[in-house]
Amino acid sequence: MQGAQQPAASPSRALAGGLSPAHDAAGDARALRRQIRAGRLTGQTSGLAPGCLQANLAILPAAWAGDFLLFCTRNPKPCPLLGVSDAGDPMLARLGADIDIRTDVPAYRVFRDGEHVDTVTDITRLWRDDLVTFAIGCSFSFDDALQRAGIPVPNVVAGTNVPMYVTGIETAGAGPFGGPLVVSMRSFRPADAIRAIVLSDRYPLAHGAPVHIGDPGAIGIRNIAEPEFGDPPVLHPDEICVFWACGVTPQLAIGRARPDFAITHDPGHMLITDLPADLKT
Amino acid sequence: MQGAQQPAASPSRALAGGLSPAHDAAGDARALRRQIRAGRLTGQTSGLAPGCLQANLAILPAAWAGDFLLFCTRNPKPCPLLGVSDAGDPMLARLGADIDIRTDVPAYRVFRDGEHVDTVTDITRLWRDDLVTFAIGCSFSFDDALQRAGIPVPNVVAGTNVPMYVTGIETAGAGPFGGPLVVSMRSFRPADAIRAIVLSDRYPLAHGAPVHIGDPGAIGIRNIAEPEFGDPPVLHPDEICVFWACGVTPQLAIGRARPDFAITHDPGHMLITDLPADLKT
Repeated sequence: MQGAQQPAASPSRALAGGLSPAHDAAGDARALRRQIRAGRLTGQTSGLAPGCLQANLAILPAAWAGDFLLFCTRNPKPCPLLGVSDAGDPMLARLGADIDIRTDVPAYRVFRDGEHVDTVTDITRLWRDDLVTFAIGCSFSFDDALQRAGIPVPNVVAGTNVPMYVTGIETAGAGPFGGPLVVSMRSFRPADAIRAIVLSDRYPLAHGAPVHIGDPGAIGIRNIAEPEFGDPPVLHPDEICVFWACGVTPQLAIGRARPDFAITHDPGHMLITDLPADLKT
Repeated sequence: MQGAQQPAASPSRALAGGLSPAHDAAGDARALRRQIRAGRLTGQTSGLAPGCLQANLAILPAAWAGDFLLFCTRNPKPCPLLGVSDAGDPMLARLGADIDIRTDVPAYRVFRDGEHVDTVTDITRLWRDDLVTFAIGCSFSFDDALQRAGIPVPNVVAGTNVPMYVTGIETAGAGPFGGPLVVSMRSFRPADAIRAIVLSDRYPLAHGAPVHIGDPGAIGIRNIAEPEFGDPPVLHPDEICVFWACGVTPQLAIGRARPDFAITHDPGHMLITDLPADLKT
């Protein structure tokens, strides 16, 4: 067991191409957030900071936060909560010591009365003392685990955003929040689909195991070639579609509830946290 | 946490319909083996002794045992080894203190020169001093776990034998042993199929996660309504087929190798062991 006695960050381990130890992964996350904060990284975050949990974002006035918290609690597959801020506090220290939610996400969507009215890369000027931030787990966190297991994730391979679809499955409502479940889709050959299901189950805060496999129509998806969010998929005839609950679901719930003001991430453009991707609670 | 202080076999727990503690499950297994030994139970064993590993059986002359052991080692999904006897020893004490392999399986197939020539319920008169017994894990062991999780297993619900198919997937050969992979099939609605995949992965000695989902033709199954072993399936249009590696695979490997003499279990008629169903190694 000589390997176990080596310091985690020893050159030999790094040279051997092994997994980065956790504090190195968090170092990647911090470096990426600095780039994002400086406005030098505004693209989607799939494949970045492997080993770190990424997060969907919903920011709501305190008057709406209680019902939204209940919505997340009742819908843990699309809305696994990583953290909730105090009202007016833009810092999310539990997710990363330096995280300032006003600057550390590559792109944001601004909603007024439930309508998406603007997309911006900084919300400092929009910040209010009554805003509550919800950080919600993201399926990007297991893409790296799949790739490392030799399971090609089509959109990661292609360097595109994952396709996301509005389904006919209704979420469990809470106060004014409700609406359809949104899913992300990755296609695999059947044997890889089985392994992807088993592996993703180990990432409960990244939506865990899928919610559906096979026929898109069975969950109300009309046209697999035309996702409502993200990029269109490239499908091969020997592949099976695998659908995971998606953290874009809250954006539709916000559209349903029509709060006077809300901010979310732009789909695919996530908050990169320091938390390990396989965190269980 | 009052419940944790109760003795495991307390009457209140039994009355509450909770899971049997491990030593009770083994008690069920012993009682069933007594029935089988006495010739009063000769049917298939699906659903019996929940919580206990069931085993496929291959019994070969010592001259063939080395190559067959290598075949199992090279094909761990269809052939997860639970135990191998010494030559001539009919007892399998590691799998259950009283197990006599000559009498404790409901039905056996006798092979001569690789051909299935007879089906019997006792092999005492056929026993030889050079026979080696291989006990191989069986997917029946997780059927109970699926049912307890609220996932209906079609053949368990119907009280029939699981359908088994010869595929076009070739096993890894070893000496004269080789041939196609045999699979068992259970069909589920997609959400249940996902849970069945995740749950079965926790039972590596019961074939673990499936080897295929979806289109039967993709693994060379010509007609899903006509399994080569077991009973025909009842399929519903909203279900997806899920295929597990099957311990009948060695029977086809024996057909390929054509040893002068061999005995297996009759498909579906398993050895019930005292080992816990979720045993990992």
